Amino acid sequence: MEIKPYKKDFEYSYALGAFVTFELIEATPEYVEKVIVHSTFTDKEKLMRLCAGRRIPVETNDKLISKLSDKENVFVIGVFKKFSNRLDNMRPHLVLDNPSNMGNLGTIMRTSCGMGIFDVAIIGNGADIFNPKTVRASMGSFFRIRCERFDTFDEYLEAYGSDERGIFPFMLDSAQFLRPGIEHGSVYSLVFGNEATGLDGSYASKGTPLKIAQTEYVDSLNLTIAVGIAEYVFTKT
Amino acid sequence: MEIKPYKKDFEYSYALGAFVTFELIEATPEYVEKVIVHSTFTDKEKLMRLCAGRRIPVETNDKLISKLSDKENVFVIGVFKKFSNRLDNMRPHLVLDNPSNMGNLGTIMRTSCGMGIFDVAIIGNGADIFNPKTVRASMGSFFRIRCERFDTFDEYLEAYGSDERGIFPFMLDSAQFLRPGIEHGSVYSLVFGNEATGLDGSYASKGTPLKIAQTEYVDSLNLTIAVGIAEYVFTKT
Repeated sequence: MEIKPYKKDFEYSYALGAFVTFELIEATPEYVEKVIVHSTFTDKEKLMRLCAGRRIPVETNDKLISKLSDKENVFVIGVFKKFSNRLDNMRPHLVLDNPSNMGNLGTIMRTSCGMGIFDVAIIGNGADIFNPKTVRASMGSFFRIRCERFDTFDEYLEAYGSDERGIFPFMLDSAQFLRPGIEHGSVYSLVFGNEATGLDGSYASKGTPLKIAQTEYVDSLNLTIAVGIAEYVFTKT
Repeated sequence: MEIKPYKKDFEYSYALGAFVTFELIEATPEYVEKVIVHSTFTDKEKLMRLCAGRRIPVETNDKLISKLSDKENVFVIGVFKKFSNRLDNMRPHLVLDNPSNMGNLGTIMRTSCGMGIFDVAIIGNGADIFNPKTVRASMGSFFRIRCERFDTFDEYLEAYGSDERGIFPFMLDSAQFLRPGIEHGSVYSLVFGNEATGLDGSYASKGTPLKIAQTEYVDSLNLTIAVGIAEYVFTKT
């Protein structure tokens, strides 16, 4: 296997940075192909121990590190096979319709992981979830999230919709505000649209639309912030 | 005045993009020096009308646009004088200790503006609040925020601390969780540390430290998300 700068159609991707690579090895060792380390990396002993216990090959290769990590300050890279997941039907889901920004997607995975929502459905062909930028922005939470893609929201509903699952699309023109203690069972889906366009009107009839109270001075909240507030309210209040 | 790519010591800065420039003109017309527009900009009529009403000069200059906006897709630039503000003592404040990322700072201003916290104190010499990246990330909320800098938190307290003002430092090792309905008056300060290091231990004795409940799977939440959740809980619950 020749290791080249990442492209979307590769069967493998990269965890850039020591922190993210440690998360990769801890959470999903079965997908790690190899670990590349820079000769000046200072915590090599811990890394070698972690990898030896899981029979993961380690290669010191400064040139390859700089080739794969672009301009970023990276000393460790984990090469991993892309994998596919199914969502857990018994748990809450976050549903993202056509997210377009890989940094946002990673930040959202980190937040979800922090709030305890480990299942993320992606509708459409937006940001590449396996891109090293997504993985890095997630700070490794990527490897603790079950992520499944669907062509359409109806396809998602067919797979996971049920009488028990409450569907909550977040839409700026909904009548009902998100609020602490809002009624929901233990199984629900929080649904968010694209950064620029939000959810289209058809979502209003697919569940209980909610909006987050905000002043007249902003058009909307940043997608990552809106997801964070909604997940906090649903999981912690 | 010669207009050159932005540097921190300039007495003026730039609103990059039509949306941000419209916000600049609406919120703080007194600081606008001039507006530069690309010959292919499609909404020139509205822009000319807005500027004429406020006697703001408009210059069509494609070369200057591309020189100032780097690689971004920009058709309008508002040139504005840097200004200084004092915070409103009667209102809630957001306090940021040494924020380092300009994109984060802008996103936080947008969120604050959306949640109705219009006063932001910056402690130390972190990110340049006037950098066009901060302004652009704020989506123009920058021009609706009162922002004041202090060398130290004690200096901030000297200026704005009072018996009425509740101080809430957000710290991962605090005993008390943020929760809806948490007791606070109408005047309070939410205090957050740097993206990488958080607040140092000395903050624990300066108010009522709070933490946001999160799973063991993340080190912390992204700063912008933590601020969003805290502001939502304090202003909307």
